[in-house]
Amino acid sequence: MIEVALFGAGRIGKIHAGNLVRQPGVRLKYVVDVDAAAAADVAARHGATVTHADAAFADAAVGAVVIGSSTDTHADLILRAAAAGKQIFCEKPVDLALDRARTCALAVAKAGVTCLIGFQRRYDPTFAALKRRLDAGEVGEVEVLAATSRDPGAPPVAYLERSGGIFKDMLIHDFDVCRWILDDEVATVYATGSVLTDPAIAKAGDADTTAVTIRTRKGKLCQINTSRRAVYGYDQRFEVLGSLGMLAAGNHRPTEVSAHKASGVSVDLPEHFFIERYRAAYAEEMLHFAAVLRGEAQPRTGIEDGVRALEIAEAATRSWKEGRVVAL
Amino acid sequence: MIEVALFGAGRIGKIHAGNLVRQPGVRLKYVVDVDAAAAADVAARHGATVTHADAAFADAAVGAVVIGSSTDTHADLILRAAAAGKQIFCEKPVDLALDRARTCALAVAKAGVTCLIGFQRRYDPTFAALKRRLDAGEVGEVEVLAATSRDPGAPPVAYLERSGGIFKDMLIHDFDVCRWILDDEVATVYATGSVLTDPAIAKAGDADTTAVTIRTRKGKLCQINTSRRAVYGYDQRFEVLGSLGMLAAGNHRPTEVSAHKASGVSVDLPEHFFIERYRAAYAEEMLHFAAVLRGEAQPRTGIEDGVRALEIAEAATRSWKEGRVVAL
Amino acid sequence: MIEVALFGAGRIGKIHAGNLVRQPGVRLKYVVDVDAAAAADVAARHGATVTHADAAFADAAVGAVVIGSSTDTHADLILRAAAAGKQIFCEKPVDLALDRARTCALAVAKAGVTCLIGFQRRYDPTFAALKRRLDAGEVGEVEVLAATSRDPGAPPVAYLERSGGIFKDMLIHDFDVCRWILDDEVATVYATGSVLTDPAIAKAGDADTTAVTIRTRKGKLCQINTSRRAVYGYDQRFEVLGSLGMLAAGNHRPTEVSAHKASGVSVDLPEHFFIERYRAAYAEEMLHFAAVLRGEAQPRTGIEDGVRALEIAEAATRSWKEGRVVAL
Amino acid sequence: MIEVALFGAGRIGKIHAGNLVRQPGVRLKYVVDVDAAAAADVAARHGATVTHADAAFADAAVGAVVIGSSTDTHADLILRAAAAGKQIFCEKPVDLALDRARTCALAVAKAGVTCLIGFQRRYDPTFAALKRRLDAGEVGEVEVLAATSRDPGAPPVAYLERSGGIFKDMLIHDFDVCRWILDDEVATVYATGSVLTDPAIAKAGDADTTAVTIRTRKGKLCQINTSRRAVYGYDQRFEVLGSLGMLAAGNHRPTEVSAHKASGVSVDLPEHFFIERYRAAYAEEMLHFAAVLRGEAQPRTGIEDGVRALEIAEAATRSWKEGRVVAL
Repeated sequence: MIEVALFGAGRIGKIHAGNLVRQPGVRLKYVVDVDAAAAADVAARHGATVTHADAAFADAAVGAVVIGSSTDTHADLILRAAAAGKQIFCEKPVDLALDRARTCALAVAKAGVTCLIGFQRRYDPTFAALKRRLDAGEVGEVEVLAATSRDPGAPPVAYLERSGGIFKDMLIHDFDVCRWILDDEVATVYATGSVLTDPAIAKAGDADTTAVTIRTRKGKLCQINTSRRAVYGYDQRFEVLGSLGMLAAGNHRPTEVSAHKASGVSVDLPEHFFIERYRAAYAEEMLHFAAVLRGEAQPRTGIEDGVRALEIAEAATRSWKEGRVVAL
Repeated sequence: MIEVALFGAGRIGKIHAGNLVRQPGVRLKYVVDVDAAAAADVAARHGATVTHADAAFADAAVGAVVIGSSTDTHADLILRAAAAGKQIFCEKPVDLALDRARTCALAVAKAGVTCLIGFQRRYDPTFAALKRRLDAGEVGEVEVLAATSRDPGAPPVAYLERSGGIFKDMLIHDFDVCRWILDDEVATVYATGSVLTDPAIAKAGDADTTAVTIRTRKGKLCQINTSRRAVYGYDQRFEVLGSLGMLAAGNHRPTEVSAHKASGVSVDLPEHFFIERYRAAYAEEMLHFAAVLRGEAQPRTGIEDGVRALEIAEAATRSWKEGRVVAL
Repeated sequence: MIEVALFGAGRIGKIHAGNLVRQPGVRLKYVVDVDAAAAADVAARHGATVTHADAAFADAAVGAVVIGSSTDTHADLILRAAAAGKQIFCEKPVDLALDRARTCALAVAKAGVTCLIGFQRRYDPTFAALKRRLDAGEVGEVEVLAATSRDPGAPPVAYLERSGGIFKDMLIHDFDVCRWILDDEVATVYATGSVLTDPAIAKAGDADTTAVTIRTRKGKLCQINTSRRAVYGYDQRFEVLGSLGMLAAGNHRPTEVSAHKASGVSVDLPEHFFIERYRAAYAEEMLHFAAVLRGEAQPRTGIEDGVRALEIAEAATRSWKEGRVVAL
Repeated sequence: MIEVALFGAGRIGKIHAGNLVRQPGVRLKYVVDVDAAAAADVAARHGATVTHADAAFADAAVGAVVIGSSTDTHADLILRAAAAGKQIFCEKPVDLALDRARTCALAVAKAGVTCLIGFQRRYDPTFAALKRRLDAGEVGEVEVLAATSRDPGAPPVAYLERSGGIFKDMLIHDFDVCRWILDDEVATVYATGSVLTDPAIAKAGDADTTAVTIRTRKGKLCQINTSRRAVYGYDQRFEVLGSLGMLAAGNHRPTEVSAHKASGVSVDLPEHFFIERYRAAYAEEMLHFAAVLRGEAQPRTGIEDGVRALEIAEAATRSWKEGRVVAL
């Protein structure tokens, strides 16, 4: 039985806890959160104990940690977990500062522990099936990735100010998808952005609408268009053109009802936001982490994937701010 | 805490057990099955005890039973559960014999217990959403129901011989959907059927392909077409025409990947069969049963719904065999 | 150059005229209509001459007639055209009276002329492609046809009173599709109908909503559901189940625009009514007639197809009125 | 009656001729082509006369010209037509050289004649309906255009060598769509491209796969991804995000048949190539030109639209070759 300490009992922490406890051979032992009530709630629900970070790291029986606390705590917790020889699952991003993320990667490598970064899209049933079919050669050589990634609405400006900017906060997922799907490293990035939804976002030094073009070392092309506001819901689609055809991943809808009325023929809006859209992905992600912990699976990603995505996000930010193409 | 005894540890029993144990305020106490190994497996998985029917019914601490054993045991278990004053969830059909089903209904009424029949389609997210929208008047007065109900392949003939025939075994779900969606009782039934997939089915006295027309008391019309064999998968769709439009329920697919190749543009086949297609429906069904047990919800259906569906199935069988319209 | 006389310069006559004059080797010589202004308009548009029926039949240079006048004139014009040895295209139905339609068929056979009946659905690109794929064996043995056939709104009651009833006026197209797609003759018909849209239709002795089940000699099954009122537009779909799969024909939409808004995701309504939906079908139909006239194609249908569809319509009417299954 | 001279009797010339002769008040008088047989064929089909350019321009009865000859003849014919005071329809591009295109624009302006450039996509029923809905404010302020534009296969390298490159030859249509849909002028262009389908294309100095990002003066964003090879057919889609939602234009398919088989659920490939996909657009385009000629409509576009699209194409070419963002 592998015992796990969970850091962060907020929205994402609760999801990870619920998925983790279903896995055979794994037990949630501790919950750590600055919000004592939140920690107590998650702990009670799953028969775990509330504790402090020091105690959790000090307990030799704890074999792994799940880090779902706020971004500014990630690096410190990774470093402490690595030092304590514990297996790690950490939400994205590793850190907002690239050098600090790299320090974490070195520490993880030195400690020889697993460090899965929470790029849950890789576990989404639709995206994962598409990737398997690409890998099986169904559309030949992969040439172009075109991704649409839109949130239903912008978070509060106070959040945006601490988020590291749209490229690190939101597109980091898309950058990971780009590397994963194109199976190649990024050569150049061109990013442009606008503020079209709320002038306060401009004041915060951020953009709310972006268009990014990535060129890989082998000359594959990737286009990503994002917006903080798609009033019709969370829009998460991508298409992959290959020499033998195209595979496309569409949105998920809550039901398969269609309505045919004088005013039009309509279907459901996409799943509302990431919690709904990626529910299955979060479950698969924790299933994978548990399999890794039990020694039954090799980790599909590592902390270096988190670092790479951050490198692209940083290049994109620079490209946008300087109005030029940036080489990695 | 309401303690529950499960009868039947086969495929459907396992599903109900897994869904039941997630419900707050409910505990799976006993598992009963003639197959001792199957019972032990389910019991072990959920911390329950294997026992015999007599012991389960005799235990005053048991407040409810879930009956997922073979069809020929349903009526006896319902009668015993009613006599013991236990709340009941029972898989369809109540019994293959209409008079025996009616006897059960009388016993349940006399005992004053709940008896939900396992018409899981009523809990399917797509079908339930459609029904809610009908009830909200979105398409006005409901006029016509057109349903397509096809299995991916026929069960073994040995099964069919004991199944009560295609109308009681397979269409009973569609007959329940008809009553539920049209919100009216059946006036006449016309059913015709053919054997088009396997001559052995004809020898067994059954049909594998049917076309049924139902007319309700208010003159609403329902058409159902079924087949034991749709090589493209489990086809479960229906459309409802109303005075202000149509609501249609489409199939569910495992993923939202589309493939665009020289040979065509394709999407996933529908979910393979009822276990996959109605996974969410089974979960909702047990959630509802638990809510009823806790006194937080009124039962949405009763044993009389099971009896009514059986009456239609019997009328359809007679219509098919005698080649005439049958009035109820 | 084959010279043609057109009878009927109304809506459908205009369409046939416009399609006819595009065909090589064919010339529209005469237009005949009781409405002189309508006849003059069509004649002027296409360089033809307005004349009377007697003159048109007497002109030996006229090799063919297109009959698009009112239903009560069809039989007489067919008989005169056959007597004059002219090739015939006639709108459906041949006549509302089955014996008179049979008299026409005998006359046509005796005269040895072609008599295409205007079942334009056979020429619709979607339906025709589906039929070719069935004939190529793509889904194996054809087993079941399920058809939805709905008009956007009912015609005036005054029209309905002279229409022969919904089965002869509206479903006659579906009955022809049934014979064409199932490639088998009808053994039994069961039809039921209701008046759900307008009580005046009941007074006129007609139904506005019907459900028909047809069983063919080989045991294939067909279900048709119709309504005079689908507020979302002209709904013309059918599905064919075969031993190796299903082919389905969906509605056509004016454009491929989809709208994604907070209120839902929607696409265009189906093409409004038969003029729009079957525009391409009407063009293909006249192209085929011209090819037959030039001796380059065998007629795909004959007057006997018109008689057969009428036989089914009459059986359906009787089935509905008498509440019983009718054998043909 | 406005008499028209057609220059070019090749594939596109034939289409324009067929559409032109259907317009009231317009007559095709002359056909001019270096290929005498082609000219004779088109002329015979429509009752026109084969002649030479000099004669056509000299005939004062000729009020308009349709230029569908090879690209290198466009500018000269525009200049001569303008000098002769004739109304002009000319296929894209005006010329491969921007300065020469500008010279044409000046001449047209000076002559005060109409000069429609053949951006037929503006007349496509789907695209035009989408644009009307944008203009009606259905999705609020337009923010982002994401376009996919792919040919089924590359033309011969010999063609590519004289084509002006992929940006002028193929994307010029997309650049026009960008200006039309975003209703704003281009501020910056970033284009990148690869050769992924055939090394011979690299030798010819061209790309076969491109990703373009355009930023307009108001900060609206446009992404275009193109390929010379989509083995599944001609892929012509775009999506427009606005403050109140998204409008998307999907591909057109030849039929609405869907096939449901053990191997998958599939629909038709998109229309094969531009001749099929834009058949209705070409008809609408000539209908518009005729309406302009009759003085019943204002020209929707002018030669300046041709010049602007060329400016963007030139900027994109430079961006791609120099690996940098180019401002217009």
